[in-house]
Amino acid sequence: MTDAYKVLGMTCGGCARSVSNAIVKAAPSAAVTVDLATGTIIVAGGVAPETVQQAVEGAGFDFGGAA
Amino acid sequence: MTDAYKVLGMTCGGCARSVSNAIVKAAPSAAVTVDLATGTIIVAGGVAPETVQQAVEGAGFDFGGAA
Repeated sequence: MTDAYKVLGMTCGGCARSVSNAIVKAAPSAAVTVDLATGTIIVAGGVAPETVQQAVEGAGFDFGGAA
Repeated sequence: MTDAYKVLGMTCGGCARSVSNAIVKAAPSAAVTVDLATGTIIVAGGVAPETVQQAVEGAGFDFGGAA
């Protein structure tokens, strides 16, 4: 099960790593794929959207909701 | 009072914002300046180094200690 979300403000690999790490820290079972070109993340592992949002915002990026 | 630290892996403004936001979230009195060119952050507000380290690592970057 995967879920896609928009994340605003990621512009490089460091940003992508930051978002991925924050989500995995909040939900250790998660696997995160980041598409920088479209500002989309794919989260596998059945993580609650609220958990993803909190992690994204905690990492300093804007959460754009389901993609 | 300011403290300087090395942070590894910041490569763009999004990374800088991520690190700054994470520190301010952990220590609301903090003011953070990021120098991307040197990978250095300046933290004003008398924040404990442990707090800075946890925030930096929580944002997905490597903490390099006092600069």
